[in-house]
Amino acid sequence: MTRWPAEEELPLLTDLYQLTMLQSYWRRGMNEPATFELFVRHLPLNRRFLVACGLEDAIAFLEALRFTDVAIDRLRSLQRFDDEFLRWLETLRFTGDVWAIPEGEVFFADEPMLRVTAPLPQAQFVETFLLNTMLYPCGVASKAARVVIAAAGRDVVDFSTRRDHGVDAALKAARAAWVSGCAGTSNVLAATTLGIPAFGTMAHSYVMAFDREEDAFRAYVEEFPDRSVLLVDTYDTEEGLRRAATVGKEMAERGHRLLGVRLDSGDLISLSRIARRILDEAGLRDTTIFVSGDLNEWRVEEIVASGAPVDGFGVGTELGVVADAPALPGVYKLVEYSGRSRAKRSTAKQTLGGRKQVWRRDNGSDVLALDEEWIEGAHPLLEPVMTKGRATRRVMAEVSRARCASAVAGLPAELRDLAPCPADSGPRPELSPALKG
Amino acid sequence: MTRWPAEEELPLLTDLYQLTMLQSYWRRGMNEPATFELFVRHLPLNRRFLVACGLEDAIAFLEALRFTDVAIDRLRSLQRFDDEFLRWLETLRFTGDVWAIPEGEVFFADEPMLRVTAPLPQAQFVETFLLNTMLYPCGVASKAARVVIAAAGRDVVDFSTRRDHGVDAALKAARAAWVSGCAGTSNVLAATTLGIPAFGTMAHSYVMAFDREEDAFRAYVEEFPDRSVLLVDTYDTEEGLRRAATVGKEMAERGHRLLGVRLDSGDLISLSRIARRILDEAGLRDTTIFVSGDLNEWRVEEIVASGAPVDGFGVGTELGVVADAPALPGVYKLVEYSGRSRAKRSTAKQTLGGRKQVWRRDNGSDVLALDEEWIEGAHPLLEPVMTKGRATRRVMAEVSRARCASAVAGLPAELRDLAPCPADSGPRPELSPALKG
Repeated sequence: MTRWPAEEELPLLTDLYQLTMLQSYWRRGMNEPATFELFVRHLPLNRRFLVACGLEDAIAFLEALRFTDVAIDRLRSLQRFDDEFLRWLETLRFTGDVWAIPEGEVFFADEPMLRVTAPLPQAQFVETFLLNTMLYPCGVASKAARVVIAAAGRDVVDFSTRRDHGVDAALKAARAAWVSGCAGTSNVLAATTLGIPAFGTMAHSYVMAFDREEDAFRAYVEEFPDRSVLLVDTYDTEEGLRRAATVGKEMAERGHRLLGVRLDSGDLISLSRIARRILDEAGLRDTTIFVSGDLNEWRVEEIVASGAPVDGFGVGTELGVVADAPALPGVYKLVEYSGRSRAKRSTAKQTLGGRKQVWRRDNGSDVLALDEEWIEGAHPLLEPVMTKGRATRRVMAEVSRARCASAVAGLPAELRDLAPCPADSGPRPELSPALKG
Repeated sequence: MTRWPAEEELPLLTDLYQLTMLQSYWRRGMNEPATFELFVRHLPLNRRFLVACGLEDAIAFLEALRFTDVAIDRLRSLQRFDDEFLRWLETLRFTGDVWAIPEGEVFFADEPMLRVTAPLPQAQFVETFLLNTMLYPCGVASKAARVVIAAAGRDVVDFSTRRDHGVDAALKAARAAWVSGCAGTSNVLAATTLGIPAFGTMAHSYVMAFDREEDAFRAYVEEFPDRSVLLVDTYDTEEGLRRAATVGKEMAERGHRLLGVRLDSGDLISLSRIARRILDEAGLRDTTIFVSGDLNEWRVEEIVASGAPVDGFGVGTELGVVADAPALPGVYKLVEYSGRSRAKRSTAKQTLGGRKQVWRRDNGSDVLALDEEWIEGAHPLLEPVMTKGRATRRVMAEVSRARCASAVAGLPAELRDLAPCPADSGPRPELSPALKG
């Protein structure tokens, strides 16, 4: 079966060629320092900026990197590797330096979000895992930031778990959404592991398990008197709203508050107006209206623009699978080896050699420069996060979240615009004199 | 950090509402048998059929389901749950019956691929995990089946790991691609865990780490004399091909064989012709041509139709993130509780009550029927896979793979057609007399 992998199996989450190349590097003693940069070739569809995310898992992987007997035995089973190489592999650790754009910061195409400098075998080997562990969180964070912009201060909650691509994706999605300003997640594992607020309402099946809708509502509020959000669209939505209002009034009389109602189908704008009217008429002005169902930044924007009395949005599928841009075109490229700049010239896939830094000017525009350059009137984005294989900076979701809020708020209006746009629409950094030359 | 979850944390990979509903069911003693069905509401974009996949992990989760102290403590930390309920939760096991469409079989919209019958709390609780663990493998398997059709017998290899949505996704993608007929994967963890063939070539960075391209080629073939696939497009592709041919000839003289070359950019059709000519002129008729780079079923179909001399395809991003349909619109719905059929009437989201079976006629058309019905001239697709909480059938990838090959080969030509099509294009099952009535 697709067993849940043990921690010590994670180094095997790599492409076979990383290990065959490693054996060749090992044999030839190609151990000089190499620098690789992880960047996105172009912005995907509908993105004018990206949000850096996923750094914590990348650092944790690099710090823990080690091939145990279990992993070595697995490699031996492939009958491709030299025994002496496998013994050497047991001694492999990551001892390099890593620089990164801080989590939560916004960035653009061509800008390295991670820069790894280490002896060639180490720096090369980690490529597959680093891309796997960072690109998806960046993708979710970048999508979530747009939904949060659209919600204009209303709550956005990650409801994506059931549609995410497996367990790891569901955890990464919840965390990335939180970094980008979502109010929380429905995912209990994510909430309790990461300390993110947990949100929940009820399912249609709950309502359907009772003989009458109002019985379901009463049973639920009895269980969670002040935290109930009643799902009102299982049968007839207006009828459901009236029943919720009745139950809400009964609760108010007993000194409790119906927290909210949830609409999950139909015309959410008109239904939310009807909901507000029915709730207000029942004196339930504090009861909030939460909506869900195939939402994305455009639907949220439309609902907010309509003035509909919606207090919060549950966003699932389109957030968690990043429906319009499910893969960032991220790559990890050798830019320097043994002190010499390296570049690739493949058709339409050229790379720019040399170890680089990204500088952000006070006006928000970026300059891509060689590491040794200094750009006046700008500050560097890449910061050291690991030195000689040890983490030098803790990545904390709360700090990343604050950074993201401030970075997104500081974007020029044209980059915060949510209108659909083709791939490669966002800005690219200006090249420094040395890189242009 | 997004820690790698321990096995005992997996029951927490759920939506909060599953647990709040559970507390209410527990309090009220709502423990009667319930049946839920997991199905896809409509086929997504560009799909005319789906491939069932992911059953093994679903069964393993249900068999192992149990809340340990660790999980209970986490739930307690949310300060929402009744202590007595949490003590009861420790005793919760899955004791139900599960029927499923066998892995590898093709199916369509509205057809339950999984049917769970168990006391209501158990059957309800598992919703989120079942959807999370099954929809993505189905999505990949359904996409991969199309790529395999396009390749018309040539090898297709899963190269998706770096772009997949995390570790779990990378494992699931490799397995699902294998079930659908891919020849193997580049993913070492998947290959060694699941016993799938591992494939690998070399990266551009390997070539770039040497001073001259031919030095890189020679170093690599020296290390893996009979298993080398040389990547020829780092600089000038034709030049790279000539260098590969030179190295291949040297190997042939020493009694070895250059296994292949890989093209990863440019016009793959014309470059593969040039490659074949250069290799043949060097007497390397056995050396294969492998191509990669932004491939999908349409690109593969185009290459094959052109008659280009391509022997294999490395398919990455579009396969692993299921680029055109990253989420299946799969749901898990209550259809029966306490012996009574249940249905939902939400706008555009109605469900059909009653415990159901899918029957396939000899002509390939399907009938959706109530469980107690018998459809003449057809065989039932759903088979029992768990009885009283114990697995009654082992899911083996090899068997699923053979089933898939036969099921896809048996599809009518119009469903094997790969041309783009809107969502909801595939067939739906005919309704049985009892369901129509």
